[in-house]
Amino acid sequence: MTPKAKTSRKKTSARAAKVRPPITGVLAPVLTPFKEDLRPDPARLIRHCRWLLSQGCAGLAPFGTTSEGNSLSVEEREDLLERLLAAKIDPGRLMPGTGCCAMADTVRLSKLAARRGCAGVLMLPPFYYKGVSDDGLFRAFAEVIERVGDDRLRVYLYHIPPVSQVGIGLKLIERLLAAYPKAVAGIKDSSGDWGNTQAVLSAFAGSGFQVFVGSERFLLANMRHGGVGCITACGNVNPGPIVRLFRDWRTPEAEWLQGEINATRSAIEGHPVIAALKEIVAHHAGDPAWRTVRPPLTPLSREQAAGLLAALGQRQFGMPGLTG
Amino acid sequence: MTPKAKTSRKKTSARAAKVRPPITGVLAPVLTPFKEDLRPDPARLIRHCRWLLSQGCAGLAPFGTTSEGNSLSVEEREDLLERLLAAKIDPGRLMPGTGCCAMADTVRLSKLAARRGCAGVLMLPPFYYKGVSDDGLFRAFAEVIERVGDDRLRVYLYHIPPVSQVGIGLKLIERLLAAYPKAVAGIKDSSGDWGNTQAVLSAFAGSGFQVFVGSERFLLANMRHGGVGCITACGNVNPGPIVRLFRDWRTPEAEWLQGEINATRSAIEGHPVIAALKEIVAHHAGDPAWRTVRPPLTPLSREQAAGLLAALGQRQFGMPGLTG
Repeated sequence: MTPKAKTSRKKTSARAAKVRPPITGVLAPVLTPFKEDLRPDPARLIRHCRWLLSQGCAGLAPFGTTSEGNSLSVEEREDLLERLLAAKIDPGRLMPGTGCCAMADTVRLSKLAARRGCAGVLMLPPFYYKGVSDDGLFRAFAEVIERVGDDRLRVYLYHIPPVSQVGIGLKLIERLLAAYPKAVAGIKDSSGDWGNTQAVLSAFAGSGFQVFVGSERFLLANMRHGGVGCITACGNVNPGPIVRLFRDWRTPEAEWLQGEINATRSAIEGHPVIAALKEIVAHHAGDPAWRTVRPPLTPLSREQAAGLLAALGQRQFGMPGLTG
Repeated sequence: MTPKAKTSRKKTSARAAKVRPPITGVLAPVLTPFKEDLRPDPARLIRHCRWLLSQGCAGLAPFGTTSEGNSLSVEEREDLLERLLAAKIDPGRLMPGTGCCAMADTVRLSKLAARRGCAGVLMLPPFYYKGVSDDGLFRAFAEVIERVGDDRLRVYLYHIPPVSQVGIGLKLIERLLAAYPKAVAGIKDSSGDWGNTQAVLSAFAGSGFQVFVGSERFLLANMRHGGVGCITACGNVNPGPIVRLFRDWRTPEAEWLQGEINATRSAIEGHPVIAALKEIVAHHAGDPAWRTVRPPLTPLSREQAAGLLAALGQRQFGMPGLTG
């Protein structure tokens, strides 16, 4: 692309980008249902997405960690994204995960998301090599942003060192923001380390960098310090109360609401979380097919499932049944 | 596939498999050269492969860790494999890396390798999720083997916990061998932990399970305990002496040879290894294009490069120049 073509495209989309404010609130990293033969199950996915939006989720982050996103091929992710759009899920509410080990894959998925008008993309750093330098990670993100070459692209950096083992530190964020102030829109901080979130908030939130926490445990604290919401696994089963806290975080009930959603999360966290969430959906929707996970994950054993449901007690999540 | 069809296919290829003994010796996890725009460079790759074979390498393991294999998309790996074959590189000498996070990708690459008659495939476990169970990993490998459904498939398990963070333990190997005694052919142990290699050797080498070490430092020890060779990064630049140790491991010179190749490795290991190997090829072949790495890796700085070449001293690797 010539520099001239780049500039003119930037002008066009700077106007377009003004149309819609950036996404804030509670996003669910949507679980991916699989058929018995382990193929993705678009019909169940669409039903689940609609339910999540009906519960007040501001958006959906398909193909994240909870979505078993990295267990899906690029083609499977492309196909599922197209099916969500074909089912009239508003792209302005979608933040698909697009970060892969191979640059070409990340570019391809991010290009599609930008072209389809997605609110943003949730971008892991390339995560195979460990102990890589900030120079290398900067170059990885920079190459993707340049190659996507679309001013509609909004990148949410995905910091999840407990899983990816490759993190996104403050200096890297600073460099990326300096180089790509429009494309680099925010972060999902799934470090589980409030100290890190606080440091990111104080360094960058003031200038409009959007900080989502990766667990609803930190939602109230995040909102009080200038954050914009959360993208949390438990949003898949407990969206209503989490959304209520997001809406009412300035009210006297906020602490109590935070305590309530923490208690639900604690009941779930005693188990492998993705399998546990699928177990909950299977149970509450009366739809055992939801239990299927892709290897290397495994579904809960009967004992684990019974323990989980006992720990959750009388909680009702209001999921629609199979015919809902 | 019906059980009957499976059985009859197994019979056919048990005969075919007898034609050729399994691969042993020194394999190079071939460096992947990139063009300035970061596209793979098939011409330089083919030239490098031919040189490695001319130096006595028994085989080539493209798309391994040293190859930046996980920084390549599935399509890029398919294309490069086809180009190697089109350049008359004997498939019986190839052990391409095929293990991806997404099962469909691993199946697709492994199917191609088996169909093309490759000696084997080097298969990482799915490596995004950490702390997964042996049940989940067993299922991951089992699904791939079943879905490839080709009795020509020979899987070499790729155990490299320092990078993948997801390892392949003894109990898992035992389960896989019990279920797929023909398909599960061996392991590349890149743990860097001789105790682990020894345990694998004593448990499985006696029954024909092929143990390659992932560093030439352990080559002599591996051969003395029933191993079959090594697949090592330094094979890319120092194949001759490593091959000589493999051939002469029973001779009185073996200890001295081991010491020599260790010294070369030590000079390299003080630096980021993949960039250092590319620097060496660039320098000795007089071909600076070889320095290019894909993000998140970075090429050596000038100072690092100078330090590396100084550490290597007068070593000559006999690489052909640009016109070689």
